[in-house]
Amino acid sequence: MNFTLPLKLKEVAELIKAEYFGDDNILITGINEIHKVSKGDLTFVDHPKYYKKALCSEATTIIINKKITPPEGKSLLFSNDPFRDYNYLVSRFSRFERCGQFISPTAEIGEGTVIQPGAFIGNHVTIGRNCLIHSNVSIYNNTIIGNKVIIHAGTVIGSDAFYYKRRADGYDKLLSCGNVIINDKVEIGANCTIDRGVSGDTIIGEGTKLDNLIQIGHDTVIGKNCLFAAQVGIAGVVVIEDNVILWGQVGVSKDLKIGKGAVVLAQSGVGKTLEGGKVYFGSPVIEARDKMKEIVYLRKLPELFNKK
Amino acid sequence: MNFTLPLKLKEVAELIKAEYFGDDNILITGINEIHKVSKGDLTFVDHPKYYKKALCSEATTIIINKKITPPEGKSLLFSNDPFRDYNYLVSRFSRFERCGQFISPTAEIGEGTVIQPGAFIGNHVTIGRNCLIHSNVSIYNNTIIGNKVIIHAGTVIGSDAFYYKRRADGYDKLLSCGNVIINDKVEIGANCTIDRGVSGDTIIGEGTKLDNLIQIGHDTVIGKNCLFAAQVGIAGVVVIEDNVILWGQVGVSKDLKIGKGAVVLAQSGVGKTLEGGKVYFGSPVIEARDKMKEIVYLRKLPELFNKK
Amino acid sequence: MNFTLPLKLKEVAELIKAEYFGDDNILITGINEIHKVSKGDLTFVDHPKYYKKALCSEATTIIINKKITPPEGKSLLFSNDPFRDYNYLVSRFSRFERCGQFISPTAEIGEGTVIQPGAFIGNHVTIGRNCLIHSNVSIYNNTIIGNKVIIHAGTVIGSDAFYYKRRADGYDKLLSCGNVIINDKVEIGANCTIDRGVSGDTIIGEGTKLDNLIQIGHDTVIGKNCLFAAQVGIAGVVVIEDNVILWGQVGVSKDLKIGKGAVVLAQSGVGKTLEGGKVYFGSPVIEARDKMKEIVYLRKLPELFNKK
Repeated sequence: MNFTLPLKLKEVAELIKAEYFGDDNILITGINEIHKVSKGDLTFVDHPKYYKKALCSEATTIIINKKITPPEGKSLLFSNDPFRDYNYLVSRFSRFERCGQFISPTAEIGEGTVIQPGAFIGNHVTIGRNCLIHSNVSIYNNTIIGNKVIIHAGTVIGSDAFYYKRRADGYDKLLSCGNVIINDKVEIGANCTIDRGVSGDTIIGEGTKLDNLIQIGHDTVIGKNCLFAAQVGIAGVVVIEDNVILWGQVGVSKDLKIGKGAVVLAQSGVGKTLEGGKVYFGSPVIEARDKMKEIVYLRKLPELFNKK
Repeated sequence: MNFTLPLKLKEVAELIKAEYFGDDNILITGINEIHKVSKGDLTFVDHPKYYKKALCSEATTIIINKKITPPEGKSLLFSNDPFRDYNYLVSRFSRFERCGQFISPTAEIGEGTVIQPGAFIGNHVTIGRNCLIHSNVSIYNNTIIGNKVIIHAGTVIGSDAFYYKRRADGYDKLLSCGNVIINDKVEIGANCTIDRGVSGDTIIGEGTKLDNLIQIGHDTVIGKNCLFAAQVGIAGVVVIEDNVILWGQVGVSKDLKIGKGAVVLAQSGVGKTLEGGKVYFGSPVIEARDKMKEIVYLRKLPELFNKK
Repeated sequence: MNFTLPLKLKEVAELIKAEYFGDDNILITGINEIHKVSKGDLTFVDHPKYYKKALCSEATTIIINKKITPPEGKSLLFSNDPFRDYNYLVSRFSRFERCGQFISPTAEIGEGTVIQPGAFIGNHVTIGRNCLIHSNVSIYNNTIIGNKVIIHAGTVIGSDAFYYKRRADGYDKLLSCGNVIINDKVEIGANCTIDRGVSGDTIIGEGTKLDNLIQIGHDTVIGKNCLFAAQVGIAGVVVIEDNVILWGQVGVSKDLKIGKGAVVLAQSGVGKTLEGGKVYFGSPVIEARDKMKEIVYLRKLPELFNKK
């Protein structure tokens, strides 16, 4: 049996064996995580802290773990484990689609684009004009790539988000619904990994250049003309504005923003939002000039101790 | 000429041109490094510090660089370079077996398992049921993978240990005899590398989840339901117990243990065994709350110097 | 229309629409960046600081952004953007050559060398005898590999340099003319990335061993019998002398030298030239014994503050 959206509220309720509030025939046209919902979507909420956000979101239907009466125009599905039921529905409607050959027949590839041997181009991938996709690159289903993009060998675009929910007996994976969008004139080095979004898309802005062995987490949005040196790692749901420079092996934690034109020196660890236009260093990171002073004082510590 | 085990002591002695102590007809049924030997095995020892360990091990035959009389039931092969002769024998009996196609005809692949294009599955690999092996993954010979395992694109499972012996004119490689075992419900991100064991096996416990670009060294044993974020690197012969969490870019040195439920914060460097149940930070790592205090004091250093 | 070198000065001037100084018929036999030029070469200079270097180099012809009279025997091409015009010429004469199959018919592969499935061997690649190239390795055009070299799965050899010039509206890429040369008995782990030189070659010396997930930047030259542990990252134009040991996750900045036999401990950051024969630690790196003292003092800081 194969389900496809849209489905009626009543049909979805049957799939997850849930009681519900709302008209049987309300149409569910999409499934999305709360940050990215629009009208017609189904979403879920399982923590009282986020009830209000979910109920006031654009979503039409919410899977929720409390029997309440929703605001007008919303319908509810009642579940003792909304995460599980949401994930089940995602897995029904955006099931992994295998691909039997290196270049999927459903991929669209623009004029002048060269695809080297061993590159895998998944289903429904779009690649623009005059791109160069080197050997053994892997591009997962539904990825969107602009024009004049270069992707070096071994790089992986569109792998699943690293996003799990702790259970008594292990971890449940939140299935990724989002994709990766790579804009014009981006260049990505060899053996990089760019995860697709859980709900929204992971986006690399026009003209941005990535060196080798770089990790970009799910739902991260990177601006234009950024430069990231080798082995930089960026967690999920990060916003990096235009013209940011990250030197080698910099690590960036999740859920934060790096402002326009910021420069972060090598091996630094970014754990909080950084204002644009400044230079940063250290793990955890502070302004580079302060870190440099700190290092000078650190070198003088023996003297300080011996004085006493 | 093609040798296969078992061989008699006399035959092995001829192969490495060694004098020996023991009955000509003693059977050598396996070859293993000293930490993993069992009855019938051949092993080697080349440092007086380990003579006793080797002679008291389960091994039946020992290649040794001193003419001694062994304990009862053991046979010896005398060599001026036991490492070289051991390695030679390993190379004869576990020689690299080339494979002419992407999926070896000797691989066993369970029902419901999907293998995407470009994935290489070596000889005698076993993969369980309902796994998903993404494009351009490389799985070396003899790897064992359980059920419901997901391996993202570009990941390499079973590459050789990084294990060399210094010689006057360069390095000799200790050949890897062990394999990689990946248990049920493990998920491994994109472009990771997991080396096989030199003697024992490299093992990833049930339900453990690895993000992208992670390195796991030879003979490392990882427990159940661990979470490792992107770009974590773990050296060889490490034991990581259940439910350990390592955040991004953490490095772990060889020959140590991380106790159950320990959490190590991003970019930390673990150089010694860590007790379970605690949170750690820094390079070198200490308890996170102590590191946080240290950082606070460090920020106050200028004040301290100026006061003086 | 397809151009091939040599060309006459007059013909090159027409290609980039430049005025010029010198005999129409002077032959341009090669194109190279200023550090690697030899007689007959064309190079470029766009900053007054480097005019003298360019004019006194071995290059026969220089693209320059000032109308001057050159020393005897040199010819000049006048351009308001020498970088752009140089790049244009490089792109005409060393244009990326696509390859339609996994092993190029123009590759030369020595006796006894094994190439596993999915390995891509580009045009004009040379591989010596008794090498083992594992699955899904990518070797770009023109790479040169010696004898008894082992390259583990997923590794990329010869990707482009990460080298851009800032423009008002983004970045211009300096095209790579150099290659990668890997000498005898080198072993390279899984999922490493080794960029080719921009002008000269990236070179790995005989007997050097690289673990997994290592990055080697463009034009870097590594000596004999070095050992680099996993996740080491080395920027461009670095010189590493013989017998250097870099432990896991060490980062090395560009344009510096690490002297013979130096040892750099895990997670260190090398930002300046290091003398050989010593042990280093820290980010930024200092001698390890000084760093160890610093750490001891750091641990005692609370005591120092509380005393006051």
